[in-house]
Amino acid sequence: MSIPKHTDLSRLCIHTITTKPWNIEQSAKYYAAAGVKGITVWRDTLEGRDIRSTGRMLREEGLTVVSLCRGGFFPSIDPAKRKSAIDDNKRAIEEAAALGTNLIVLVCGADPSQPLTESRKQIQEGIESVLPEASAAGVRLAIEPLHPMYADSRSAINTLAQANDMAEAIDSPWVGIAVDVYHLWWDAHLQQEIERCARHNHLFAFHICDWKTPTTDLLFDRGLMGEGCIPVQQIRSWVEATGFKGFNEVEIFSNIYWKEDQHQFLKKIIEAYKEHS
Amino acid sequence: MSIPKHTDLSRLCIHTITTKPWNIEQSAKYYAAAGVKGITVWRDTLEGRDIRSTGRMLREEGLTVVSLCRGGFFPSIDPAKRKSAIDDNKRAIEEAAALGTNLIVLVCGADPSQPLTESRKQIQEGIESVLPEASAAGVRLAIEPLHPMYADSRSAINTLAQANDMAEAIDSPWVGIAVDVYHLWWDAHLQQEIERCARHNHLFAFHICDWKTPTTDLLFDRGLMGEGCIPVQQIRSWVEATGFKGFNEVEIFSNIYWKEDQHQFLKKIIEAYKEHS
Repeated sequence: MSIPKHTDLSRLCIHTITTKPWNIEQSAKYYAAAGVKGITVWRDTLEGRDIRSTGRMLREEGLTVVSLCRGGFFPSIDPAKRKSAIDDNKRAIEEAAALGTNLIVLVCGADPSQPLTESRKQIQEGIESVLPEASAAGVRLAIEPLHPMYADSRSAINTLAQANDMAEAIDSPWVGIAVDVYHLWWDAHLQQEIERCARHNHLFAFHICDWKTPTTDLLFDRGLMGEGCIPVQQIRSWVEATGFKGFNEVEIFSNIYWKEDQHQFLKKIIEAYKEHS
Repeated sequence: MSIPKHTDLSRLCIHTITTKPWNIEQSAKYYAAAGVKGITVWRDTLEGRDIRSTGRMLREEGLTVVSLCRGGFFPSIDPAKRKSAIDDNKRAIEEAAALGTNLIVLVCGADPSQPLTESRKQIQEGIESVLPEASAAGVRLAIEPLHPMYADSRSAINTLAQANDMAEAIDSPWVGIAVDVYHLWWDAHLQQEIERCARHNHLFAFHICDWKTPTTDLLFDRGLMGEGCIPVQQIRSWVEATGFKGFNEVEIFSNIYWKEDQHQFLKKIIEAYKEHS
């Protein structure tokens, strides 16, 4: 790859889920001590906390709160559940504002008991119905296209082209896209769709990890960058060629790494970030 | 769905892998006794057999040998392995001819240690290099696009659009495509790509099963039609709207079903075929 390696950690962000055994106070303290500059907060870590104080604590540690994970899960064959999802997304917007981040990642959802076309329609309707709250709070929403292996129940948006289509159809400055290499690496049109995404000012976030080969679990066997077959540096070169200046967000769900000493794992993340992302 | 249900088994084919605990003689006998009219033979079942006699045995049971599974696995970073894959595909062509089928399904392959673009190039080169043998033997080759979760090591061809692109680039009457609902159901462009595939006379085979939700294994947890979220009947309606008159091939890899009594499982297959495919 011709892209230069990262020489410092100024654009490294870690998702709290990556070091799941740590609570948010531990994550903040240890990320900051290691020189990490960004944190993406998963909502479960906020349970029982005053969100405003937690946001202050993160900033005092010198961390940028890159985003809140996650809103979405809009589709359901049951209208009451769709309504409840919209309410939950409104709460997520309030939480993001309280935390002091201007971005929420959307795992859009799917309901296996209805056609994907119907789920996609409900996703668009769901996002559009929370736009007034998003705009009032100054919080942007990033559609995250998920790997097609999650099309049954996690997201009916499975390619960057689909996410681009939807963001362009919604056509709001508050709606863009989170590009995650794990979900999209296999797509032959990835480079051109990243360019299209950025051209419409929709490239809001960039998530990294690796696809292990073999992968033993559909959810919890993600790898560190360099451990699998995803050309992370090449994809970053496409992202950066668009002018993207945001964080590289490490988001790893791994039953294996969650069992390790998380201090050792954090060291590995930083090494992998420098060497393979 | 407006498409009529199957009223008989005249277009039902079963892949031998579906009833893996049975050897090919058992599969042939029990499929035929149940009224199944087609069989797709996996090469492992031919081990230690005289292939010509086995083909005769299958026809004597009244079975059409729909295809031989599988050729492919062309890409490798190692030229010696690429050469060896080509030799193996030539052997598969001989086996298909001996067995008396005019179709081989290709699981095209991928090598995680090289870019997908390189693997795709090697797939095309691999297929082209066995065309003389295919044409001489009267054996057609069906590119099977595989689900993107297999892009690391099983196939760098992951959408029907990619398979269509490649079949059109090769542009030979001996090269077409196998459409499998498990691999392709999530694709928003599936209907139009099926139409495109048929328009170019590339629609060679149609494989069915279901995507269970949740799915617990990346390989061996496929479901019976009706057990998951794939709109099998709708996809069949798109396939048949093109004029396709081939078999509906049941191809299920399932650690769960392989543990069951295979006679009971065969009954379930036939029920699921009639009710949900």
